[in-house]
Amino acid sequence: MRIAVDIMSGDAPAEELLKGALKAHEDFKVEIVLVGAEEIVAPYADTENGIYTAFSKSVVEMTDDALAAVKEKTDSSMAIGAKLLKNGEADAFVSPGNTGALLGAATLTVRKIKGIRRPAIASIIPLEKPFILLDSGANTELLPENMLQFAYMGAFYAEKVFGVESPKVALLNNGTEETKGTELYRESYKLIKNSELNFVGNCEGRDIPFGFCDVLVCEGFAGNVALKLIEGMGKFMSNQINGLFRKNIMTKLAYLLTRKGINDMRKKLDHKEYGGAPILGIAKPVIKAHGSSDARGFYNAIKQAKVYAESDIIGRIETSIAKIKEQSKDVRGDLNATAVSEAD
Amino acid sequence: MRIAVDIMSGDAPAEELLKGALKAHEDFKVEIVLVGAEEIVAPYADTENGIYTAFSKSVVEMTDDALAAVKEKTDSSMAIGAKLLKNGEADAFVSPGNTGALLGAATLTVRKIKGIRRPAIASIIPLEKPFILLDSGANTELLPENMLQFAYMGAFYAEKVFGVESPKVALLNNGTEETKGTELYRESYKLIKNSELNFVGNCEGRDIPFGFCDVLVCEGFAGNVALKLIEGMGKFMSNQINGLFRKNIMTKLAYLLTRKGINDMRKKLDHKEYGGAPILGIAKPVIKAHGSSDARGFYNAIKQAKVYAESDIIGRIETSIAKIKEQSKDVRGDLNATAVSEAD
Repeated sequence: MRIAVDIMSGDAPAEELLKGALKAHEDFKVEIVLVGAEEIVAPYADTENGIYTAFSKSVVEMTDDALAAVKEKTDSSMAIGAKLLKNGEADAFVSPGNTGALLGAATLTVRKIKGIRRPAIASIIPLEKPFILLDSGANTELLPENMLQFAYMGAFYAEKVFGVESPKVALLNNGTEETKGTELYRESYKLIKNSELNFVGNCEGRDIPFGFCDVLVCEGFAGNVALKLIEGMGKFMSNQINGLFRKNIMTKLAYLLTRKGINDMRKKLDHKEYGGAPILGIAKPVIKAHGSSDARGFYNAIKQAKVYAESDIIGRIETSIAKIKEQSKDVRGDLNATAVSEAD
Repeated sequence: MRIAVDIMSGDAPAEELLKGALKAHEDFKVEIVLVGAEEIVAPYADTENGIYTAFSKSVVEMTDDALAAVKEKTDSSMAIGAKLLKNGEADAFVSPGNTGALLGAATLTVRKIKGIRRPAIASIIPLEKPFILLDSGANTELLPENMLQFAYMGAFYAEKVFGVESPKVALLNNGTEETKGTELYRESYKLIKNSELNFVGNCEGRDIPFGFCDVLVCEGFAGNVALKLIEGMGKFMSNQINGLFRKNIMTKLAYLLTRKGINDMRKKLDHKEYGGAPILGIAKPVIKAHGSSDARGFYNAIKQAKVYAESDIIGRIETSIAKIKEQSKDVRGDLNATAVSEAD
């Protein structure tokens, strides 16, 4: 197992991410390809022990236009990592960079699974009980068929990473009734309900933190807002708790008395706990690490990459595509039944 | 000032909401019309002291189809409250009931402000610094022009309730760049940016809790998800904190040492702090109280109704409509400039 890691494209300095990568190499017994500027990565090359290097000459910035970056920055750490994966010189690729550009590199260089229209970013969120949110930012304009594919891909991933059989799949919505939401959501509801998945219905915002489902399906706009809002609320609470205990000597004493519980609580709010989100629908394992990853977040993203690459998730998606397509046709066909019978 | 209150349509028993209404009557020196079943409200009639009653014979349920409820349940507490407002027998109307039905009753009975295409539910959210989120659930399909109207209505409301001049207006989005989001958001960005409002750009989910803006504009799907997610995260944190301090005798001591701070923190997370959301764009003050309002939440919603009814917000919206329309035309005109110049 060899994982290519882009240490240049995150918000944190390359040295910080390098630290996380080296620790992951040691702890998970995986080979690592450090992709970055020569002067940073060259000193760490140790091919006998499975640490390889690949030199990049540019960096995709967070503010770069995604498509332009993919087309023009062909010597960037992101582009080189994607090429290593494509050419079989790595089994997985992890990057903390510009989401749109990474999605572009994954789609154009590594390529999508045949039959998958849109890849989705599948984020794992801790809270009461961890769940997968997809799409959490790749696509803002979708068809119900894409949402059904997301539901299947998310369920396959959840089975693997959470070790649950028949994971509970829900649709994010602005109410529980099946008539709620936009047309996209109403149609997606019908498709997923009529699939073989364990569909538990619509999930409202207020139910998200409480283990309503294992897989939460939505388009990327609402998904991204929800993902970042959960992150923001976690940070807000963390700040509040810090302030609470820092007030005076008595509150500092209170901190000592509750420290263990506070740490457990922080874990439930910490998105770095699962540092990486797979881009599901791509033919090989690409993991988007959080843009603000520190060494620990990057380390956890590499852990995700290993789990994903060792699994049969991509194979299962490939073999299920035809069936998913049929199910989608059946239901959409029913919807047009009137038109068809008139033509008879 | 006379406020009609629907005590029948909430999740809580009518007696609970009645309690909140009577306390509001006392504290805010407002006349109250208790709208509810005769056997519940009749004993409280006290016209000399400004407590009136109106008897309803049915209740709009949370699960009712909105339009059907408005058309068929004409003797419901919600329908009667709306009629009192329309006929000038009340200056404002507060209901905790079915959002869609209340919106329907407001639109069909009380009527929209001339020139306003879509009314919006404007929720006040506490957190670091209170802000107004609109639309938080009324509309899922919108045009950029509607979003511009929301921005103005929200700004007028923020000026009044927060007492700030030139409130900061932001657009909810999945990134900070103006090219982010769906076409609706990209076009809305241009319109609001070119308006006379104090536009501070796109607000990502993670920035929401930290006082990024006074007015956060979005369509009702993402707005509803965000509103309920903030509520859910607040409840989640509240549960976590309860668990934290209940563990053993030492953590219970810690609670005593930090109690004041914890209560302050809870307030920042408590949506009942501002129990009501005005439906902006309706020609008279209609306030949607939270469905799960208890006496205190309903009391706070009546407080909101009073502030709203005493203000000149509706008048300002009426007089600004023409100007808003012009601004919207100017920018949308520019967008079509190529087409026009070709025709020249």
